[in-house]
Formats: sequence, C-alpha cells, structure tokens
Amino acid sequence: MNERDEESVGQPLAILCGGGAFPLEVAAEARRGGRAPFLIGVVGWSEPGIEVYPHVWVRVGEVGKLFGALKERSISELAMIGRVARPEFSDLRLDWGAVKRAAELSQLFRQGDNGLLIGLARIFEREGVRVVGAHEVAPRLLAPSGAFGARSPSAADEADIALGASLIEAMSRFDVGQAAVVAGGRALALEAAEGTDAMLARVAELRASGRLRHRGPAGVLVKAPKREQDLRLDMPAVGPDTIRSAANARLRGIALAAGEVLILERDLCAREADAAGLFVYGFDP
Amino acid sequence: MNERDEESVGQPLAILCGGGAFPLEVAAEARRGGRAPFLIGVVGWSEPGIEVYPHVWVRVGEVGKLFGALKERSISELAMIGRVARPEFSDLRLDWGAVKRAAELSQLFRQGDNGLLIGLARIFEREGVRVVGAHEVAPRLLAPSGAFGARSPSAADEADIALGASLIEAMSRFDVGQAAVVAGGRALALEAAEGTDAMLARVAELRASGRLRHRGPAGVLVKAPKREQDLRLDMPAVGPDTIRSAANARLRGIALAAGEVLILERDLCAREADAAGLFVYGFDP
Repeated sequence: MNERDEESVGQPLAILCGGGAFPLEVAAEARRGGRAPFLIGVVGWSEPGIEVYPHVWVRVGEVGKLFGALKERSISELAMIGRVARPEFSDLRLDWGAVKRAAELSQLFRQGDNGLLIGLARIFEREGVRVVGAHEVAPRLLAPSGAFGARSPSAADEADIALGASLIEAMSRFDVGQAAVVAGGRALALEAAEGTDAMLARVAELRASGRLRHRGPAGVLVKAPKREQDLRLDMPAVGPDTIRSAANARLRGIALAAGEVLILERDLCAREADAAGLFVYGFDP
Repeated sequence: MNERDEESVGQPLAILCGGGAFPLEVAAEARRGGRAPFLIGVVGWSEPGIEVYPHVWVRVGEVGKLFGALKERSISELAMIGRVARPEFSDLRLDWGAVKRAAELSQLFRQGDNGLLIGLARIFEREGVRVVGAHEVAPRLLAPSGAFGARSPSAADEADIALGASLIEAMSRFDVGQAAVVAGGRALALEAAEGTDAMLARVAELRASGRLRHRGPAGVLVKAPKREQDLRLDMPAVGPDTIRSAANARLRGIALAAGEVLILERDLCAREADAAGLFVYGFDP
C-alpha cells in the first residue's frame, strides 16, 4: 500500500453514478479498499440499487445541489462511473449552482465526449474536488495481460487484434470510438455514438442476413481507450453483456487493452466466455 | 472529345454488373457516348433488367465462361459497376478458367475489399482486358462542385464536412469505410461492412430511441473514396435511396467529394433532397 492509499483509507469517496451496475461494483471495491463510498444518483441515469449505499439523488443540471452535498460531507474525491446519456444543453434543468457556471457549461456542450468530460472534471477540481478514476479506487477491475478464461487467440487473431488497435488509435484524435470488430484483416464495424453492444448487434445482423459470410466463429472485438483519453473520466468497460453480444455475433474472441479497460463481473465474464467458446485476452497497448 | 474517346467510339464496353440500377445507368451513359455496352450479369447479384442490353449471365466463380464471352466478342475494356456481396472463397463454384487461377484467386480473398478489387483488375488486365471506371465511361454521373438542389451548407455544416473528410482519410489506410455522419463536431457513425444505408438507419434509430438528442435536423453524411482507392474499381455512389435514408435520419445534408463520388438519378436526387429540406453538396477533396 503506497502513501497515497494510506492517506485515503477511511476517506469518503463520491461516485457520480451513470447507468448500469458498474458504479455499484466500483463502490464495493472502494469499500473493500477501506474507502467510504457516497453515491450520487442522477435521475434517469442511475440504477435504484445505488440506495444500498449512503447517497443523494440529483437531476441533470442540479450542479448546486451536487456541490452542496459534497461540501456538507467534506468529500474531496469523486469518481464518475457508468454509462451516461449525453443531454442537450437546452434540456438541462439548471439550478442556481449551474446558472452561475452556465457560460462554462454551455461551452462544454460544444465539445466531443472527451472534451465534455475533461471540462466537467475541471469544474469539479476548481471546487476542490479531485476527480479520480475507477482504476485508482478499484484497480482489481482492470483487464490483466494475457488470456483469462480457457481460450487464447491464434496468430491470425493476434494480427486482427493489432489491426484493430491501430485503427482505434488512428480514430482517436477525432474523439470517436473505442472499439472495432476485425476479421481476417478486414474491419467489419467501427464504433461511434451507438456503443459497443449495438455495434456487435450489427455484426450479428450482417451475418444472419448473409451480408457477411463466414463459416463458424470469425472476428475479434478490440477495445481500447482513445489515445488522448483521460482514463479517470471515461475508461472503456466490458461485462457479461459484452460477452453475450460477442457470442451472438459469432466472434472468436474479445481483446482488451491491458490495464486500460475495466471488466465488470470478471468471474462471470470468464465463465460465459468459456461456455461460448470465446477467448478474452488482454493485449499490451 | 480527346483522342482516346475518338478511338473508343463504337468500341464494345463490357460492364460487370453488381446489384442495383447503377450498371444500367452507366450502360445508358456509355451508349450515349457512342459505346456498345455488353453486360455481364452475375447470378445472385445483377438485376434481371440488364437483359435489355446484349448480355451474358455467369455464376460467381465462372471465370472461364466470363473470359470466353469477352474473347468471343473481342471486348478489351470492362467496367465493374454496382454493389457486390463479397463471397467466401470456399462458396465459389469454380469453372476450369477459375481453377487455373485458383492460387491467385484464393490470395485475393485474404485482402480487404480494396485489395480484392485491385487483384481482380490485375487478372483482367493480364488477359488483355483494360479495366475502366464509371467516371471514364460515364463522366456525367460524377458529383459536381458546390451545391446542387436548392439548399447550401452553413458554416457549421462546412466544419462538419471538413471533419468527416479528415476522418475518412484517417481510416482509409485501413481499407475501411467511405462514409461518416458528423454533427456539431462529433462523429455519430462510421461506415464499415454495413454500408451507407445501414449506417444512416442506425443514426435514425439512435435519434428515435432518444440516445442521440438533437432538436430538428442535425448532422451531415460525408462520403468520399478512401485515399488509396482505385476509382476505376470502387467509386462511392449515392442515389435516391441515400437521400431518403438521410432524410429518415433527419440530417441537414449530404456532402460528396466532387469528381470522386457517383450520383445515380441525379435529377430525382435533387428533387427528393429539396422536398426533404436537405442540402447536397460537392466539396473539393
């Protein structure tokens, strides 16, 4: 345990909860690491399940209420975890705390996703709230190096993984996509606003309709953060849903940038991947 | 009319017909330019409508029959036009002409789409058949510079067009995608194996489901060839279906690399774009 960890033991940690079960998993890991999680539920985004922890609910745009809740509890660290639906700026219900920052907030909404998150983090930090990443408070959730589960990629799969990783890197300066499906040296699908599961559903459809004709399992889902991405703000994540979507698309496996992609419910993922005959592999980015 | 055109007047021109109405449109333009079109229908790909021209039907893999038909008619130029479903090599029904070239053909199937087409063209050329592009035999089908139809892009649209063009250029060394949808500086969708219409259907779904929240029309479809692409072999094309798909996705307009993208049924496209409130714009690549 390093110095920082020692200092932070017992310290409260706010978790701004996007959708899905991931915020709860990070909260459990943080608690296991000695932190006291305080969950911020966002109406319309967060699961009701967050209420098993100390929590507060806010609406998108209730910036003043959010900062008030953090100050009241002397919370100086916050992690932003889970899927968020990007709102239109004009849809926000702004409270006074938001109105004070309206010019800056409206600026953010002209950015790509990455720019939006960087700007949000800057606002938090100016209020004395350090933004930390899931990898800092829950490092056991990161993709390890090498195969986990029973299967490993072939040499041809490794070539597809390398191609997918280069492709994601080439797209990254456009603040787009963290995933691609590559089969036999050919990119079948590139992720943008639709997200990974929808991209995999598309590959499944292309195969079912005969537009992509492969005999048996084919292709690898490659997932890695954009190069400039601040991992504290938006680390790519996979979970059992990803395994199921990849199995439906009849892929050969899933490759994750080791140490840079989070895995939800890892044991379940490994079991489901084994059952579906998929490899799950952490490649060195 | 330049020297080559004079020489080619009255010369037969073979058109290897992929799917859709585009091969017929190229045949009509070629005939208008004084050529004698001979259409090669591919079972499962080509429209029955090709039979209004002198033609022969072949199955995928009947390479010998195809070359025989060209030799018999002393045809020395061929254009490959229209949508093709990439077959698996193992699905091909190879005739003797294909078996003789099997090693080379199977090599091709390990390439991306672009590599596959380049290799095919090389095989034709070695048999003394020059491969020509739609832009050479039907230049009136190319996207012109500037707006056509009633509407023009705004300054913000032009920024999105520039971003989309850069993104397609960055992807082009991976032999993937000739289209992207960009809205307000953000890439919403990138095309890979699914094709442009399916990509636009995805944007329409993301909007209908509320995952993408824009008030009113938003975004531009940008279409341009890959940088290394041999335009004789696979020139991007749009048509009335593209206009309809873009209208369904509630885009603001369509931007095409001028001189490098083909437009099917241009007058109908302009009318439909005007009716849907879309701009159609040829940008200088």
